[in-house]
Amino acid sequence: MKNRHAFITGIGGFAGTYLAKELLDAGYSVSGSVYKDDSPEQIKFLKKTCKIYKLDILSKLQTSKLIQKLQPNYIFHLAAFSSVGQSFANERLTYKINIDGTLNLLEASVGLKKIAKFVFISSSECYGKFSPKTKTLTEDDLLNPISPYGISKVAAEHICQLYLSRFQVPIVIARAFNHSGAGQNEICVIPSFCKQIAMIEAGKQKPLMNVGNLSAKRDLSDVRDIVRGYRLMAEKGKAGAVYQLCSGKAISIQSVLDKLLKLSSKKITVKIDKNFFRKNDIPTIRGDYSRAKKAIGYKPNYKFDKTLLDSLNYWREKI
Amino acid sequence: MKNRHAFITGIGGFAGTYLAKELLDAGYSVSGSVYKDDSPEQIKFLKKTCKIYKLDILSKLQTSKLIQKLQPNYIFHLAAFSSVGQSFANERLTYKINIDGTLNLLEASVGLKKIAKFVFISSSECYGKFSPKTKTLTEDDLLNPISPYGISKVAAEHICQLYLSRFQVPIVIARAFNHSGAGQNEICVIPSFCKQIAMIEAGKQKPLMNVGNLSAKRDLSDVRDIVRGYRLMAEKGKAGAVYQLCSGKAISIQSVLDKLLKLSSKKITVKIDKNFFRKNDIPTIRGDYSRAKKAIGYKPNYKFDKTLLDSLNYWREKI
Repeated sequence: MKNRHAFITGIGGFAGTYLAKELLDAGYSVSGSVYKDDSPEQIKFLKKTCKIYKLDILSKLQTSKLIQKLQPNYIFHLAAFSSVGQSFANERLTYKINIDGTLNLLEASVGLKKIAKFVFISSSECYGKFSPKTKTLTEDDLLNPISPYGISKVAAEHICQLYLSRFQVPIVIARAFNHSGAGQNEICVIPSFCKQIAMIEAGKQKPLMNVGNLSAKRDLSDVRDIVRGYRLMAEKGKAGAVYQLCSGKAISIQSVLDKLLKLSSKKITVKIDKNFFRKNDIPTIRGDYSRAKKAIGYKPNYKFDKTLLDSLNYWREKI
Repeated sequence: MKNRHAFITGIGGFAGTYLAKELLDAGYSVSGSVYKDDSPEQIKFLKKTCKIYKLDILSKLQTSKLIQKLQPNYIFHLAAFSSVGQSFANERLTYKINIDGTLNLLEASVGLKKIAKFVFISSSECYGKFSPKTKTLTEDDLLNPISPYGISKVAAEHICQLYLSRFQVPIVIARAFNHSGAGQNEICVIPSFCKQIAMIEAGKQKPLMNVGNLSAKRDLSDVRDIVRGYRLMAEKGKAGAVYQLCSGKAISIQSVLDKLLKLSSKKITVKIDKNFFRKNDIPTIRGDYSRAKKAIGYKPNYKFDKTLLDSLNYWREKI
């Protein structure tokens, strides 16, 4: 469709793949960049419907050349060092990719004639410490990030705002809360549960699951809802606005596990392993999507039970 | 004095020189680093009483070696790309020096046996946009920086907090508001006024002053008060705390100019030049030093009229 060309950095990643599908279904033509072909299956699938480019966003020149060539109407910046946990051991790399990479992409977007929106994917990790500990987070809350990942996203958000005020790059910022779905990396808690259950069902693992902190409560969404939010932000978001994309509910990891165990016929023993606990884990994270609802009509469509079933089935098939 | 060794990065700068004097007067032994001998007079003066080292804080190795060798009890991190105005044209360099440089110094400080406090010099520029526009700022306000300088200081503050929580580097953060005094660079508004008046008095300039936005109100302190605040933070500040150092009053640039003109016997015409106006200038900036007063006994000692007179006399002597 004319004037509906969307470019996605990190298109080969978990959310990137879903976003490509969301946009294609909505009639966009889609291109995107990957850093390397590290998920060849995914890329092969994407190549059927999208134009895929190799791009190192740390190269200012490469980034600028590609963006100038493509002249997209929409840019979705998903490429990032995206593991909160691993950002601690990769602090400098996290800042480099998430701050300098964003800066390169913003610079490349200055003066683009046909750009309608630059959607920057940020995170609820920006909030970090807050009080009281059971607070429902809103876009106007203080940002006290406690991980290199969170720190990098706050800085990148600020740089986005600067590129709007200085150079009129029409940025909008998505503060996405935790989301999950089929295809997510197993270092994340839900796919790790699903994989273990599927392994046990397939007789490839003893009926024993090692798990971390089950008492933490998180605001969990289906990745398909979140990427729809990204699209709505591109279409209806106000330049400079920050929108939380979330479910509005906090659910404990314990109850996620209970739901998943109920989906399996196997009798499984659960063992809590303190080695899996994160330092300074925040007890409860819950967002509020009122602003996104009002401004762009966002609300979650998927029931989280469906998300869990789809994820479990994905692993059952894979194993 | 034993266990009173203070190390100052950027010791050759405006505030660095005053801080060295403040600490020496209080009985500290003082060392410090300069990037290059760009103010040879200053450095010559400092070398009489302090150990001065050349250091590029962008070199992780150099920084670590020097800190390990010196084993200071106190670190004051003043070295920075410090011009808000010039940070726009030097965005990447600003992030490099102010973020990566701080990270290098923090890394070098991890595990120092005798360190009592790491004082990070931040800025009221962290606040950026706020509302209402006449608000009195406190340490708990949102940080919405609108300059590369402000963005870099927010990120560096967050990294400081991370190094406290992860590695127990005993950081404290000074959010210094505008301060002035003899020796300040003439790209700043007050020394620029003082220099022009001194030039006119010496017959080296026509009795005409070109000035920028006079309606902006700023919270202005004497540099000697601010550096005393840095020392008090080192001695009494709580690890992890942020303290605003300011006067608590907002005074218009117009009234600063009026006061300076009154100090001169010459009849001087003032011409407002829109070219000197900053984009997005914040109308009123006023801080609140209650937290610093309660925690570390900070209050301004210098009347601002004295600051202005000293600055003017400095330029009179220089010209």
